[in-house]
Amino acid sequence: SLGLQRAQVTHGVRELTLCKDKDGKVGVRVKPINNGIFACLVIDKSPAALAGLRFGDQILQINGQTVAGYSMDKVHDLFRKGPVNGISVVVRDRPFERTLTLHKDSTGHIGFQFKNGKIFSLVKDSSAAKNGLLTDHHLLEVEGQNVVGLKDKEISKFIENAGDIVTITVIPTFIYEHMIKKMSTSLLKDLMDHSIPTF
Amino acid sequence: SLGLQRAQVTHGVRELTLCKDKDGKVGVRVKPINNGIFACLVIDKSPAALAGLRFGDQILQINGQTVAGYSMDKVHDLFRKGPVNGISVVVRDRPFERTLTLHKDSTGHIGFQFKNGKIFSLVKDSSAAKNGLLTDHHLLEVEGQNVVGLKDKEISKFIENAGDIVTITVIPTFIYEHMIKKMSTSLLKDLMDHSIPTF
Repeated sequence: SLGLQRAQVTHGVRELTLCKDKDGKVGVRVKPINNGIFACLVIDKSPAALAGLRFGDQILQINGQTVAGYSMDKVHDLFRKGPVNGISVVVRDRPFERTLTLHKDSTGHIGFQFKNGKIFSLVKDSSAAKNGLLTDHHLLEVEGQNVVGLKDKEISKFIENAGDIVTITVIPTFIYEHMIKKMSTSLLKDLMDHSIPTF
Repeated sequence: SLGLQRAQVTHGVRELTLCKDKDGKVGVRVKPINNGIFACLVIDKSPAALAGLRFGDQILQINGQTVAGYSMDKVHDLFRKGPVNGISVVVRDRPFERTLTLHKDSTGHIGFQFKNGKIFSLVKDSSAAKNGLLTDHHLLEVEGQNVVGLKDKEISKFIENAGDIVTITVIPTFIYEHMIKKMSTSLLKDLMDHSIPTF
């Protein structure tokens, strides 16, 4: 399905070319985790979003410079000092994330409960349970659509509106919380790129 | 390479058929994490090892019964009560693990330091840094060979003996520690299946 295609986490490496917007920004905020640099906010309609950078992507190189072990400031500085056009970025596809493909039952349910985006229980013998969905994980995407910072009601709506087969992308909560630490809910909700990725 | 083939974590689902050995055992110990059931010890040369079950595999079903939310005892009991031949097990391939393919530099190094199997630092501009290896992760496999519980010297030997391209499998330390909690070093070192998987 198209949802699965969009959502599939490959853990592979790809290269993106970023430009700056009129304010000189690429539109990404990063966070160092375990000496890796992770995109923790991709601003809606920003050059980073348009180039296909996604929440949870690991940035490996910026203009040929390996960024492992760098601080947040040092990475933001590299972007700031980069050329207006053609900042080359090498990215590993969301190493902490996984996709799961679930099937709706006859009542339209896929079998888990969540609160503030966090999966906290599985319905016995549901598609979620059968497929090995785990609790203490956060929902990041539904059918490839980023849902970080959205209200539970809105997330449920995306699940409802999907077909009988629903692909979700999840991340362990302890990593998620690390990534969004110090970011306000409004930042996540209002600025985060929530568009559906296209190819 | 063959190492990559053995080591590749697919996160896919597969079905295995286990038998019991002469003591009525299948040779696996499980641990519940986030309502999922994980193989945390696969005994060397046991029916489970021979069938291809691996450390970190998530067990989804045993003889058609979905085990999400089960306790360790309940799962061990299911195995104990299963038929001598033909316990069907549905497994998701190591959901918390990832493989990385690293290249040795001219001095034979791939670029990270580890202690008791735990990666704690990356060498600047090394293959490990360029490929996005993360610290606070544990080494689980080298070229598909399980190294859980082995001494650092032995693990280094496996890396040395590999070719110029080395595939390693890692897991976040917080999950690893959860999996091996309450298991003695000798259990891990002496009983764990350390064979190289074949297909």
